[in-house]
Amino acid sequence: MQYFPPALEQLVEQFARLPGIGRKSAQRLAFYILSLPEEDAAAFAQAITQAKAEIHCCPVCQNFSQGDGLCPICQDPKRDAGMLCVVADPKDVAAMERSREYPGVYHVLHGVISPMNHIGPDQLRVKELVSRVSSGEVREIIMATNPDTEGEATAMYLSRLLKPFGVKVTRLAYGIPVGSHLEYADDATLMRALEGRREM
Amino acid sequence: MQYFPPALEQLVEQFARLPGIGRKSAQRLAFYILSLPEEDAAAFAQAITQAKAEIHCCPVCQNFSQGDGLCPICQDPKRDAGMLCVVADPKDVAAMERSREYPGVYHVLHGVISPMNHIGPDQLRVKELVSRVSSGEVREIIMATNPDTEGEATAMYLSRLLKPFGVKVTRLAYGIPVGSHLEYADDATLMRALEGRREM
Repeated sequence: MQYFPPALEQLVEQFARLPGIGRKSAQRLAFYILSLPEEDAAAFAQAITQAKAEIHCCPVCQNFSQGDGLCPICQDPKRDAGMLCVVADPKDVAAMERSREYPGVYHVLHGVISPMNHIGPDQLRVKELVSRVSSGEVREIIMATNPDTEGEATAMYLSRLLKPFGVKVTRLAYGIPVGSHLEYADDATLMRALEGRREM
Repeated sequence: MQYFPPALEQLVEQFARLPGIGRKSAQRLAFYILSLPEEDAAAFAQAITQAKAEIHCCPVCQNFSQGDGLCPICQDPKRDAGMLCVVADPKDVAAMERSREYPGVYHVLHGVISPMNHIGPDQLRVKELVSRVSSGEVREIIMATNPDTEGEATAMYLSRLLKPFGVKVTRLAYGIPVGSHLEYADDATLMRALEGRREM
């Protein structure tokens, strides 16, 4: 037996398909949509259609970009095109940009190598990375995948793949996060911080 | 500085407006939408527009219903129109229907009286309830608002309002939930369960 009218049931199902949203939350969200003024609900639907239609991957760095051309970072002449930061995800570009320190450009892999999930280099934007590096403009590649098993393995794999092109391959430093307490740092982080110690 | 292209930023903002969805979750959901096949994203947008366009309140019971006519429950000739269950929310109708035991019809208030949130009887579907009861068809009104302060106050208010029409007003029984353990029951529930004890 159906407890909600079909159009409402369908909206609940759509929300329930989103990651991390269960059936109860989906109901709550669907009811919220129904409680919105007509134009706000339309704006929501419009935002979905528009994002899907207008957001493409930048043909160079593969980051999400509006329209078909290069993304603003790849277009920016002030960016050092010889310095390439490799990240797993567009979210990571946003995180790096927040630091306002990085002068180079990016390459977004759209994932990490994960044999458990049947994701190999062919499912990622590795081919595009290799062709960028082989063009000779890149001096240094900074691996900025997450410091977890899959991120490490991906960085290691790419490093071996790219070194033959004669580029410098570096990895973001490991260490104690700024503002944290030593006593809460885990063993692996402390060990890495000790290994990476620098003269002051 | 903007880290996401405008159309993506807009989608993130739309998701972040939903209740219980923070900025980080909104990002995750927006990225998920971008990762969907074209037609799935379109179906999502369509579900929102369609639900908003097609779901209206049933003119009798005020429950959500597809189209402009009566809802399926109000239309059903097998339902006892003399027995009226008053609930706060369309979700509560779904919960009652799940029990498959209730033979009567419903009235959805769309909220409870809550002076803190500036919600009085005028903001609820109380006028419609009174006119249904005054028409004389209703024998019994079952108050099924939540057993919390506001639900209780609302039930009490409506009970005083409706008794003059000569109808029987009842309240759902309080007690220990089936399948639970006595040791975890709170004092108030145990007291109510004792008060409401029945001969076996």
